[in-house]
Amino acid sequence: MKIATYEQNGAARIGIVRGETIVDTGFPGSMIDLIARWDELRPAFEALDDRGALSLAAVTLAAPIARPGKIFAIGLNYADHIAESKMETPQRQVWFTKAQTSINGPFAPILIAKNTFTADYEVELVAVIGKRGKHIPATQAHEHVFGYCVGNDVTERMWQHAGPQWSLGKSFDTHAPIGPWITTADEVDPHALDLRCLVNGELRQSSNTRHLVFDLWQQIEHLSAAMTLEPGDLVFTGTPGGVGAAMDPRRFLKPGDVVRCEIDGLGAIEGAMEAEA
Amino acid sequence: MKIATYEQNGAARIGIVRGETIVDTGFPGSMIDLIARWDELRPAFEALDDRGALSLAAVTLAAPIARPGKIFAIGLNYADHIAESKMETPQRQVWFTKAQTSINGPFAPILIAKNTFTADYEVELVAVIGKRGKHIPATQAHEHVFGYCVGNDVTERMWQHAGPQWSLGKSFDTHAPIGPWITTADEVDPHALDLRCLVNGELRQSSNTRHLVFDLWQQIEHLSAAMTLEPGDLVFTGTPGGVGAAMDPRRFLKPGDVVRCEIDGLGAIEGAMEAEA
Repeated sequence: MKIATYEQNGAARIGIVRGETIVDTGFPGSMIDLIARWDELRPAFEALDDRGALSLAAVTLAAPIARPGKIFAIGLNYADHIAESKMETPQRQVWFTKAQTSINGPFAPILIAKNTFTADYEVELVAVIGKRGKHIPATQAHEHVFGYCVGNDVTERMWQHAGPQWSLGKSFDTHAPIGPWITTADEVDPHALDLRCLVNGELRQSSNTRHLVFDLWQQIEHLSAAMTLEPGDLVFTGTPGGVGAAMDPRRFLKPGDVVRCEIDGLGAIEGAMEAEA
Repeated sequence: MKIATYEQNGAARIGIVRGETIVDTGFPGSMIDLIARWDELRPAFEALDDRGALSLAAVTLAAPIARPGKIFAIGLNYADHIAESKMETPQRQVWFTKAQTSINGPFAPILIAKNTFTADYEVELVAVIGKRGKHIPATQAHEHVFGYCVGNDVTERMWQHAGPQWSLGKSFDTHAPIGPWITTADEVDPHALDLRCLVNGELRQSSNTRHLVFDLWQQIEHLSAAMTLEPGDLVFTGTPGGVGAAMDPRRFLKPGDVVRCEIDGLGAIEGAMEAEA
C-alpha cells in the first residue's frame, strides 16, 4: 500500500495512492498516529473502495510525516561515496541527525539559506519505523519497519565540514524532502532498490541499495542499542557516490536547479532550489 | 515565574512553583502549547491565587517539556573543559544533538544501558526557546528565550568517541534529565549563574556561566542561521570542566551513584544511576 499526506483546502489529509489516483482515508489523526495504530487500521484501509478518488496530479503532496520524533542518518555507507569523500570505510556505523524542522514536501522548493553557497544533494532510501523497540536484533529488525520512502539528505557542505560535527550542517530548513508517499514494508525489499539523483536532468548518482556497507537491519540494531525507536522515526540509510562536493571542480546547487531523487518502486521527489528570501 | 510539569493520578499537569508549594494552572495543553501562547496566557497565570496549592514534596515533577522538537547542545564551550578534553578552543561553534527520546524527569533514574559502562555527567544551563525565529541576531536573541532550566547532558563516552560523530552517544534513553522546572527569562541573567555537579555528594564540576566561550546570544544567532527555532526547542549551553572521562584514572558512573546538578536560582535535579533491565 502507498500512503500519502496531501493538502486539500489548506488541511492535511491522509490518502491511499493507487496508480495515478489518490483516495482519501478520512483518517483524522497524523501519519504517526496512523503508524502507531496500523495493525488495527490496516483492514479498513485495505477495504477502502475508489469512491471519491482524485487525480494525483490535482493534489499537492506533503511530506508523509510532518514532524518525525527522530531523524537519524548514517554517513559513509556506500563504498563509492566513501572513496569520493577520501575517507576510510568505518568499522563502526557513523550517525548524525537532521532536525525535525528540516522536513520538506516531496515537490516543495529547497532553500539555499542566506549567506550560504554550498548546498548539495544526497539521494537516500528512508525507512519509516513502525513498531516501537529497544535492543532490536538485526534478525527481527524488519518487524519494526512500517515502510519506505525516498529522501534527499540535502547538505550545506561548508557548515558540515567547518567543524567536527555534521548535524547542524544537515539540519537547514527544507533540507529533508521526503516522499512522495510511504510504501508499506510488505511491498519492498530494502536491499534491492535502484536509486538515483538527477540535477536538471543530468544523472549524478546511480546505485542500488544492495551496496549498503551496513544494511538496514544492522542499522536498526545499532540505533536501538542506544535509543527506543518509535513509530514515525526516520532512518536515512546512506547515499551513494556522485555528490557535487566530490566533483572536480566542485558543483554545488544554485537557485533554479531542479533536483530529482528516484527509487524504483517507491517513486520520485523533485524540488527546485530557491534562494532564501 | 517558575513553571513545572508534574504528575497527578497518572496525568501530566502544569503548575506554578511558589516557594515549597505548587499551584495547578489547569492549563489543558502541553508545555510547548503554553510557551507558544505565553503572551496571551501570562496575565492569567500571574493572577492565579494559591488556592489548592500542594506541597512540592507531595508531587512527582516530570521533565518540564516531554518532547522538545529539537535539542541542540554545544560542545567545548568552557575553557577548563576544553583543556581537560585536550582539544583546541574552537573558532566556530560545535553543535551536536540529543534525541527527543533521551528526555528524562528531573528526579528519575538515569539508565546505564546494557553493554555500556562509560556513562558520564555534564551539568549545563538549558535555554528554552519561546518565540519562533530564523536569522535571529545576537542583539535580539534574548527576545526568543522563554526561560531556563538545569540539564544533565548525560553522555555514553565510548559511543561518543568510537566514531567521529557524537549525537548517538549523546542520545541514550534517559540521558537528558531536565528541570526541576522552567524559570521564566525575566528572572534570570543567563551569563551570571553558578552551576555545579555532585556525584554522591562529592563536588565534581563547579563554574559560572560567565565563562561560556560562546555566550547564549551568539549560540542562538548561529543556530538560527541554519534552522527555524521554535517554542520549546532546547539549547544545552555547554559544560564546564570536571567530567569523569577527564579524570586520571577515569571515573565513570555506576549503578547506585547519585548525580546532582544545581544552578543557582534555577534549582537542582538529581537522579540515581540504574542498570538498564
